[in-house]
Amino acid sequence: MARYVDLIYKKRFGGEHTKQEIHQIVNGVITGEMPDYQISAWLMAICINGMTLDETAFLTEEIVKSGETIDLSSLGEYVIDKHSTGGVGDKTTLVLTPLLSSTGIPIAKLSGRGLGHTGGTIDKLEAIEGLNTSIPVDKFLDQVKKYGIAVGGQTAKLAPADKTLYAIRDVTATVDSIPLIAASVVSKKIAAGSNVIILDVKYGTGAFMKTVAEAVELANTMVEVGNRLNKQITCCVTSMEQPLGCAVGHSLEVIESIETLKHKGPEDLTELCLTLGAVALTKSKMVNSIDEGKALLVKNLDNGEALKKFEDLIKAQEGDISVISDYSKFRQANIKHEFKADNDGYVLKCDALSIARACKAMGAGRDKKDDPINMAVGVVVKKKVADKVQSGETLAEIYADEDQHLQVAIDYLKQAYELTDKQPEKPVLINKMIGA
Amino acid sequence: MARYVDLIYKKRFGGEHTKQEIHQIVNGVITGEMPDYQISAWLMAICINGMTLDETAFLTEEIVKSGETIDLSSLGEYVIDKHSTGGVGDKTTLVLTPLLSSTGIPIAKLSGRGLGHTGGTIDKLEAIEGLNTSIPVDKFLDQVKKYGIAVGGQTAKLAPADKTLYAIRDVTATVDSIPLIAASVVSKKIAAGSNVIILDVKYGTGAFMKTVAEAVELANTMVEVGNRLNKQITCCVTSMEQPLGCAVGHSLEVIESIETLKHKGPEDLTELCLTLGAVALTKSKMVNSIDEGKALLVKNLDNGEALKKFEDLIKAQEGDISVISDYSKFRQANIKHEFKADNDGYVLKCDALSIARACKAMGAGRDKKDDPINMAVGVVVKKKVADKVQSGETLAEIYADEDQHLQVAIDYLKQAYELTDKQPEKPVLINKMIGA
Repeated sequence: MARYVDLIYKKRFGGEHTKQEIHQIVNGVITGEMPDYQISAWLMAICINGMTLDETAFLTEEIVKSGETIDLSSLGEYVIDKHSTGGVGDKTTLVLTPLLSSTGIPIAKLSGRGLGHTGGTIDKLEAIEGLNTSIPVDKFLDQVKKYGIAVGGQTAKLAPADKTLYAIRDVTATVDSIPLIAASVVSKKIAAGSNVIILDVKYGTGAFMKTVAEAVELANTMVEVGNRLNKQITCCVTSMEQPLGCAVGHSLEVIESIETLKHKGPEDLTELCLTLGAVALTKSKMVNSIDEGKALLVKNLDNGEALKKFEDLIKAQEGDISVISDYSKFRQANIKHEFKADNDGYVLKCDALSIARACKAMGAGRDKKDDPINMAVGVVVKKKVADKVQSGETLAEIYADEDQHLQVAIDYLKQAYELTDKQPEKPVLINKMIGA
Repeated sequence: MARYVDLIYKKRFGGEHTKQEIHQIVNGVITGEMPDYQISAWLMAICINGMTLDETAFLTEEIVKSGETIDLSSLGEYVIDKHSTGGVGDKTTLVLTPLLSSTGIPIAKLSGRGLGHTGGTIDKLEAIEGLNTSIPVDKFLDQVKKYGIAVGGQTAKLAPADKTLYAIRDVTATVDSIPLIAASVVSKKIAAGSNVIILDVKYGTGAFMKTVAEAVELANTMVEVGNRLNKQITCCVTSMEQPLGCAVGHSLEVIESIETLKHKGPEDLTELCLTLGAVALTKSKMVNSIDEGKALLVKNLDNGEALKKFEDLIKAQEGDISVISDYSKFRQANIKHEFKADNDGYVLKCDALSIARACKAMGAGRDKKDDPINMAVGVVVKKKVADKVQSGETLAEIYADEDQHLQVAIDYLKQAYELTDKQPEKPVLINKMIGA
């Protein structure tokens, strides 16, 4: 067995770790034999010098092996998982899980909570009164068998090495590294037991990856890691320069998701859900083409089947189903403010990060993992990039509970919006599909 | 005040720290506010991305300020310190301190213990029965005033941040970084209070710097850091491909030092001591040229003044002075083995690192800082690079206490020596002088 210091040396000077070396390191992380200060030095060397695809796959595999894995094979031949690298207003999972389930594919989805400026699916679902996301694995599987759908919180027993590594990365400036992100994301997906994995890799101001190039590199890495570990991974590289859809904030996003399931949602969100869903259907051999998949999904939006599945989900997890027809059942924010345009023009910029910050300032985000979240507050953008605006028209609605928070949110929205005289081109949402 | 994680981020992406940022980090190191895992991530980022000369000088200054400094101004206008970056058979300090003291310059020298494959002056002095190197600062200064010379162990009160940083570097593969080594060496010299600083920067298999280019870069860095902190530093870049002098091992090196003080020592060691000494004398305005300095030093070797000072040093620090005339007073090794040449030729290689490893295997080195040392064991090379050798002639004498250790030492010596048919050029010892 090598000394840890020699393994760190190797990475410091750009060497490539063997499978055995990565095994030793992940084992050291789990047992505590490799102390934090050695782990962080090693992580920093990876951040600067990188990792090969083989190393990244070894790391992913060892993280999976560090804990339990869920066996979903009893649910059917294909079990789908969809994951987003995190964005602003990203409620795709809320729409896509019932939509796919409505076609007959079993959905057993484990989701995370929000941290930093991005929200988490589990938090959003909890905006529905009474809805329970802490479900033991056996009950979780029973629910999928009975209703075809379950969405639960991640358990600490899956990929525990990832938890330890992330806690260190978070405080040592080693979070944003493509191999480390890839290993973290893919290991959790593999441990969760699905065999059709669809990843939405976001780029832009509101995402962890700031450029298309970085997002494409991350996507390629995850697809290649999947190949090496015999898991089929498809990555959709999508823009996160402006919020996805219009609503940002927990209750507001659930409402927008329900609208989308009624086929009355924003165009961009609907299009993304149909595309990701159609990829999942082709990968699961349910349909022969993306177009066929989209047609099936549109049909289930229009005939109410998708919405019905969402109702099943809420019911099975003990939530209040009356929210579906009566949005006033969500707790309402104290203040609703219309943020208006000062002059005529076209929207040049509707910056996702500034809008996320506005929401966070009003209580819709956390800094630490146990911080409480205000479900009612948020922003609904009424104008997005390339939209025409007249002076005095509402650019966005702000939902706040306190006046002082509203003021901060207004300041952020001033930074978020930029108008121009000449109409810009409508931005591309889906930039690239990798591994399809 | 910045968050530590943001400071690490800055260095990860190659940014340059301000004086205030370095102050915050060193303060965090000392107070424990910056935890080990953040320190090690930051150190790794420095190892890979480097530091500017300004940053290195700020770091050096802050390490000095992290503890006490010794005030040597009462000793005279010029107080000399000489330091080597560490080599095999490097007993220069043992020769040079009494030699310089014999010219009337006060010598207040704090030295370190050996670690890894290189020996330490303090350990070597302790090969002399009874000699005490743990001297409180006030007694230390009194001794310099009375005898003109004192050599003591480093105190924990000087540059404590360096101690903490070094302990982390040692286990996180972040030792060999030019800015970190420069800050460590120069901060300790400045804290120790001298104003004429002569540094012997070694390169080669037996040194930390493996190439001339690295050693020159380290030397330039230390001279420049000195300039920024108003300390005159001179660096001598010297070869450590083969041992300096002939003896390697504690008692054996003290004996060779005494021989050198009698002007009967090896040519290379004598030459290096005369050169480093002459630089110190010119920097202290004792002489007008290197040649004049060398002549003065040679005179004091020949007339016994230098040896007399060594006797003063031993006496003042309670050691047994009879060793000077009777080398049998040193504890003798159980076994003396002659390592002989298998055929005729010229020495092409007499590898310092292999010889150091032979000595360490016999007990002359430590892995951890409190490991005991065997003073009696070691190697005396009889043939060095470019020397002519006949089959059956002794290449080196091995002094061991145990048979099994001897066998390991012989294996290392087989690796150390390489003969060739054509006489190679005699290697250059002193490659470059920087800041002279």
